[in-house]
Amino acid sequence: MSGAATEGKPITCIAAVAYEAGKPLTVEEIIVEPPRAHEVRIRVEYTAVCHTDAYTLSGVDPEGAFPSILGHEGAGIVESVGEGVTSVKPGDHVIALYTAECQKCKFCLSGKTNLCGSVRATQGKGVMPDGTSRFKNKKGETLFHFMGCSTFSQYTVVADVSVVAVDPSAPLESICLLGCGVTTGYGAAVKTANVQEGDTVAVFGGGTVGLSVIQGAKIRKASRIILVDINDQKMQYAKEFGATDFVNPRTDLKEGQTIVEKLIEMTDGGLDFTFDCTGNTKVMRDALEACHKGWGTSIIIGVAAAGEEISTRPFQLVTGRVWKGSAFGGIKGRSEMAGLIEDYKKGKLKVDEFITHRKPFTEINEAFENLHSGECLRTVLDLQTHHHIC
Amino acid sequence: MSGAATEGKPITCIAAVAYEAGKPLTVEEIIVEPPRAHEVRIRVEYTAVCHTDAYTLSGVDPEGAFPSILGHEGAGIVESVGEGVTSVKPGDHVIALYTAECQKCKFCLSGKTNLCGSVRATQGKGVMPDGTSRFKNKKGETLFHFMGCSTFSQYTVVADVSVVAVDPSAPLESICLLGCGVTTGYGAAVKTANVQEGDTVAVFGGGTVGLSVIQGAKIRKASRIILVDINDQKMQYAKEFGATDFVNPRTDLKEGQTIVEKLIEMTDGGLDFTFDCTGNTKVMRDALEACHKGWGTSIIIGVAAAGEEISTRPFQLVTGRVWKGSAFGGIKGRSEMAGLIEDYKKGKLKVDEFITHRKPFTEINEAFENLHSGECLRTVLDLQTHHHIC
Repeated sequence: MSGAATEGKPITCIAAVAYEAGKPLTVEEIIVEPPRAHEVRIRVEYTAVCHTDAYTLSGVDPEGAFPSILGHEGAGIVESVGEGVTSVKPGDHVIALYTAECQKCKFCLSGKTNLCGSVRATQGKGVMPDGTSRFKNKKGETLFHFMGCSTFSQYTVVADVSVVAVDPSAPLESICLLGCGVTTGYGAAVKTANVQEGDTVAVFGGGTVGLSVIQGAKIRKASRIILVDINDQKMQYAKEFGATDFVNPRTDLKEGQTIVEKLIEMTDGGLDFTFDCTGNTKVMRDALEACHKGWGTSIIIGVAAAGEEISTRPFQLVTGRVWKGSAFGGIKGRSEMAGLIEDYKKGKLKVDEFITHRKPFTEINEAFENLHSGECLRTVLDLQTHHHIC
Repeated sequence: MSGAATEGKPITCIAAVAYEAGKPLTVEEIIVEPPRAHEVRIRVEYTAVCHTDAYTLSGVDPEGAFPSILGHEGAGIVESVGEGVTSVKPGDHVIALYTAECQKCKFCLSGKTNLCGSVRATQGKGVMPDGTSRFKNKKGETLFHFMGCSTFSQYTVVADVSVVAVDPSAPLESICLLGCGVTTGYGAAVKTANVQEGDTVAVFGGGTVGLSVIQGAKIRKASRIILVDINDQKMQYAKEFGATDFVNPRTDLKEGQTIVEKLIEMTDGGLDFTFDCTGNTKVMRDALEACHKGWGTSIIIGVAAAGEEISTRPFQLVTGRVWKGSAFGGIKGRSEMAGLIEDYKKGKLKVDEFITHRKPFTEINEAFENLHSGECLRTVLDLQTHHHIC
C-alpha cells in the first residue's frame, strides 16, 4: 500500500454538517480522523443527494442523530486504510455502500438476502463499528456518521465492509449514483422481482428509483410498463427510460374510478409486478391491490414516514398476491457492483441520464431544494474543485 | 356411462338446510334436480364440518346467502352426469372441490396458481354456472349452493370442473378430509411455502389446518416446528403431528414479552416460515413479524372476519420479510389429488388421525358445536346410513 502524505493523520476538510432537523446544512471545515482497524478513509469526489438524506434531515427519521454528516450516494478514491483492510487499497476508486457486505455473517452466507448484519447496529446509531465517530468540528464537537457512508464531506471514513473498489475507467461523477438510487430501482426489477419477458409492470413514483425500475423492466422485456405519478413532468422521463404508459391518477381516471380499478382495466386483471417508489403507505396498498390475482407481486421500495403502517384485507394475499420489499435492490454491493459498472460501460444500464443538475459542493442546500421539483432527478455535487467558504 | 335408476330425474333426499344466519341447520327432505350440461350429481357418502361452514352460518360471511346447503369437505360416488361431462362417470368415487380446476382459463394455464377463474363468479353467488340452483325444499323454495360443493346433502350437484375422481380403494370416510382442511395445511407447507430441510417453522393455530401444516413441515424435515396456540389441549396433538415445540402465549411468555419476541428468541432471529391458521388479523401480524429478517415468509391461510384488515410497518417487508397467502394449499384439485391419495395410502400423509368424532348426518348441529372444543379436530358425518327424520 502506498502511503499518502496524510496517512495516519487527521485531515481538515470541508463538509456539510446537519446540525439540526429541518435546518439547512452548514458548510464548514471539519476534522476527519484516520481510519482505525478495518476502516477506510475515502477522498469523496462526487456525491448525489437522495430523498433519504432529506428524510433524515427533516427530523422524522427515528434513527436520525444530530449533528451529523449526511450523504450516502457517493464515490471517491481511497486515501488510506486501517489495519487489516485487504479488500481495498489507497488509490482505488470506490463507491460507499450503505448496505454492507461482510461475506461472513448469517445473512451474507444465507444466499437469500443482500442485508448484512455485521455493522447494522452501530450504523443505525451513527457511529463506526467500535462505537466511536471519526468526525468532529472545529469546536471539537463530535459529529455522527450516517448510513455507514457520510459522503457529504471531502473525506469520510467507512468500515471496510461498506465500500467496494470499482473499475477506475468508469467516471466517478456518474457512478456515484450506483451507491443508491439507480441500483435500488434496477435491482428491485431484475433481482428482487426478477421480471421476466412478457410480464406487466406498474411503477408508482417516477423519481430516480422508479425510473430505474422501469429501465430494469425494459431490459427484461416486460410487455407493459406503466408509470403512475401525480406529476405530468414525469411523462417524458417515463418514455425515455422505457415505460409504455403513463397514468396521472389526478387527471386520468374516469368519474368514481380508483387507480387500482384503472390499472386492472388496463391490464386485464392486474399486474404481474408493482413497485412502490413513493414511501406513501396508501400508495403501497394501491400497488398491492393492483396486482393480478393468483400471482401478482408488489414490492415496497420507498421509505415510509416513522410510525406509518401498511394495511390491506388478508383476502388480497389469500387469493395469491404477494407483498414484499427490497432494500438496495437486493444487490450485494461488494459482490455485484462490478457487474453493474460493466453494464453501465456497455450502455446497457442508464446512469448519466439521471443527472439533471450538477453543482459545486458548497451549493448543497440548493440541491436539497431541487429534489422537490418534478424535473430534478439527481443533483451531483463536485466535492473537490474550487471550494471557498465565505 | 351406466345409468342409475334415478338418472335424469329429481331425487328427494335428506339435507341440512341453513335457513337463517346464526340458527341451527334444519335437517329435512329436499329435491335435487338432475345435472345439466357439464354438471355432475354426486351421492355424498361422508362430509366433515369445517370452520368455514360455521363462519358462513354465523352470518358474517359477506358472500353467505340463505337459505342454502352448506358443506364443502365431502366425498361420494357419482350418480349421474350431464351432457358433455368427460372427466368423471357414474360410479366414480369423487371428492368435491371448492377450488375448481378447468385447465383452460388464464389462471389454470398460468402455471403460477391453483385458483381457477371458470366458476368463481357464480360460485360466489351460490348458484351453478348457468346462474340457477339445483336445490329446492318441499315447499318449492329455491336453496342456494355453497362453495360449489354443498356436501350437507345426500345428493348434490357440482360443476364438472369442481370434482375429481379418486382411487376407489381409498376409504371415502377418510379422504373426504382431503376436500379442505388436510390439503389446505399440507399444501401450504409443501407447495406454497415449499419448506426445505433444516428450515424453521411456526404455526399459529392447532386445528386441522395447522396440524396439517405441521405434518407437511415434518415431511420436509424442518429443523424446528413450533405450534402456537392458546389452548393447552393442542400440545398433545402438536407432538403427534410432528411439532418440536409448543408455545401458549397466555402462559409461556416472560413478563412483558410478546409472542414475537419469544419466537425470535427461540430461533435466533426469527423463523424461515410462519403460517397463520387462525383467521385473526392480529395473529397474522405477529406471524409476519416473527419471521427472520432477510428472507422469512409468512403465509396467511385463515379466513378473517369481513372487513378486518392486516397491518404492519412497511419496514418489515423492506427488510426482507415476505407476506403471502394460500388457498387450498396451492393444490390443483383435479391434477394433484391423486398424489395426495397415494401419499395417504402409503402412510406418508396422516388423514385418519384428524377424525376425532363420527356422527350420523342427522346430528350435524352437534358437529358444529364440537368445532369449538379444543379436542375436536374433525367430525365426519355419515350421510347414507340409518337416517330417520323425527
